[in-house]
Amino acid sequence: MRRIALGLSYSGQAYEGWQSQLSGQTLQDALERALAQFTQVPIRTLCAGRTDTGVHALQQVVHFDCEIERDDISWVRGTNRYLPKDMAVEWAKEVPESFHARRSALTRRYAYWLLNSPVRPSLGHERVGWVFRPLNLERMQRAAQTLLGTHDFSSFRAAQCQSPTPIKTLLQADVSERKLSADRSYFCFEFEANAFLHHMIRNIVGCLVSVGQDNHPVQWIEEVLNAKNRAQAAPTFAPDGLYFLGPTYDPSYSVARVNANWVGFI
Amino acid sequence: MRRIALGLSYSGQAYEGWQSQLSGQTLQDALERALAQFTQVPIRTLCAGRTDTGVHALQQVVHFDCEIERDDISWVRGTNRYLPKDMAVEWAKEVPESFHARRSALTRRYAYWLLNSPVRPSLGHERVGWVFRPLNLERMQRAAQTLLGTHDFSSFRAAQCQSPTPIKTLLQADVSERKLSADRSYFCFEFEANAFLHHMIRNIVGCLVSVGQDNHPVQWIEEVLNAKNRAQAAPTFAPDGLYFLGPTYDPSYSVARVNANWVGFI
Repeated sequence: MRRIALGLSYSGQAYEGWQSQLSGQTLQDALERALAQFTQVPIRTLCAGRTDTGVHALQQVVHFDCEIERDDISWVRGTNRYLPKDMAVEWAKEVPESFHARRSALTRRYAYWLLNSPVRPSLGHERVGWVFRPLNLERMQRAAQTLLGTHDFSSFRAAQCQSPTPIKTLLQADVSERKLSADRSYFCFEFEANAFLHHMIRNIVGCLVSVGQDNHPVQWIEEVLNAKNRAQAAPTFAPDGLYFLGPTYDPSYSVARVNANWVGFI
Repeated sequence: MRRIALGLSYSGQAYEGWQSQLSGQTLQDALERALAQFTQVPIRTLCAGRTDTGVHALQQVVHFDCEIERDDISWVRGTNRYLPKDMAVEWAKEVPESFHARRSALTRRYAYWLLNSPVRPSLGHERVGWVFRPLNLERMQRAAQTLLGTHDFSSFRAAQCQSPTPIKTLLQADVSERKLSADRSYFCFEFEANAFLHHMIRNIVGCLVSVGQDNHPVQWIEEVLNAKNRAQAAPTFAPDGLYFLGPTYDPSYSVARVNANWVGFI
C-alpha cells in the first residue's frame, strides 16, 4: 500500500464546498471522480481543511492510500486531465504512512483579499470581497495584532461550528495594502493559526473592516474578543475573497508554503 | 442634447465579444439593456475598441447622446445596478460634442497576461494564457523591441480583419515577469499602438512565446514581420489572457490611463 499526498488549487465558486455530498457538486466529489477516471479504481481522499461554499484554495492538501504505482508527475498530469478547469493538482508525492493531511497539519494559513473602491468589482467579482467606504490600513493592522496568541474565539465562531473547543492560537494576523489609484486599493489579510473555528476568518475580517471604516475604535476588537459572544461581532463577511493558503507540516514532509501574493490567476 | 462618456471594465468570458448581435449575448447588448433600464429610454452606444469573444477590458470607453440629466456618479451607480456582475461602469462624465470614443482615440493599449507553469491554471483559467515550457524573459523582450515603429503588420493580421490598412505604428511592446516560485511565473506583455489589426496582439504574443521557448532565434520575429505573410507567424494565441487597457485621448478630455498591474480582481 502506498500513501499519496496531493496539493490542489481551486476556485470554490461553482461548488458546494469541499466535503462530499449526495448531490456530487462538491470539490471532493470532483477530485474523487477524476482520480477514479485516471486510476480506474475508487479512491477516497482525506483533506487538510474542509473549505466552505465559495471559498478558494491555493494549496488544499489531501492524502489517500492505493496499490497503484505512478510517478509523482503522472499523478499530477493524469488527474488534471479529468479535473474541471477550475481545479488543478499542483503537485503529488508519495509520503510515509505517518503522514495524515489533517492530523499532521501543525498550522493552517488563510488569506482574505478585498477590493476597496467606490465601484464594485467586475472581472474578478467571485474572487474578492468588496468595501466601497475608504479603509484605514494602520487602524486595521493595530486591531489585527490584538488578536494574536491563544484565546477563546467564541465571538468569531459560527453557530454550526463543530470544533471541540473555541480556544485557538493565532500566530499571524497581518494586513497589507496594494494601492491601484487615489481611491482604489486591494487589501490582503493574512492569518495563520493552529486551527480555525467555522467562519472565524470571515467574522474577524468583518470586525477589522468595521474598525478600518472608523465605525469602532481600534480597542473594540479586544472587547469583542473578551465578550466571548458572537452577537458582539460584525456580520460574517462574504466568502468570495477567502483563500486557503494551505496547512503547514513538519519540514521533513517537504510541503512548501505558498505566498498570499500568488493570488491572481493561479 | 448631452454627450456622456463611460469607462467600463468587464470579463469577456461569458459574452460573444463587444459588438451587438441579434443573439443579444454581447457586452454592448448588456450595456444598452442596463442603460435602458436605468433611463427608461433606448440608448445606442459607440465604443473605442470592439473586443473579441473572451477578451477582457480594464477600460473600454463608450459615448452616447441623450436628453437626460444626471450627475456623473448617478450614471455610474444607476447603470451598475442593472449590469451583470462581470461588467461595471468605472466612471462617467459629460464630454464636449467634439469627443468621439473611437475617432478621438489617439492610441489603444492592451496587456496579455500569461502563466508559465508546469501545471495549468485553475482559479483564474478564463483570465490568463498558459505556457508550460519555460520562457526566457530577455529573449522575448529583445524580440518585442524589433516590432516598434511603423510597419506593415500583415503577418500578424487575421483573415477577417476589416482595417483599411495593415500599416500601424507600435509605440510600446514591453515584456515583464513576476516570479512566483522556481518554476512558476506570470508574464505580462504590454502594447500600445495608434490602432491594432484583428488578432494582431494574440499573433504577436504567439511569436514572442515561440522565441521565449527557443523554437526560433530572436531575429526570427523581424523575418516574420518582413514576410508580410500570416502563414509565417505562430498560431493565434488564446484570448483568455488579453485585456483592453483602454484608448488614450487628448489630455483635455481627462481620461486617465489604467495600469496593466491593476489586473487581478478588478
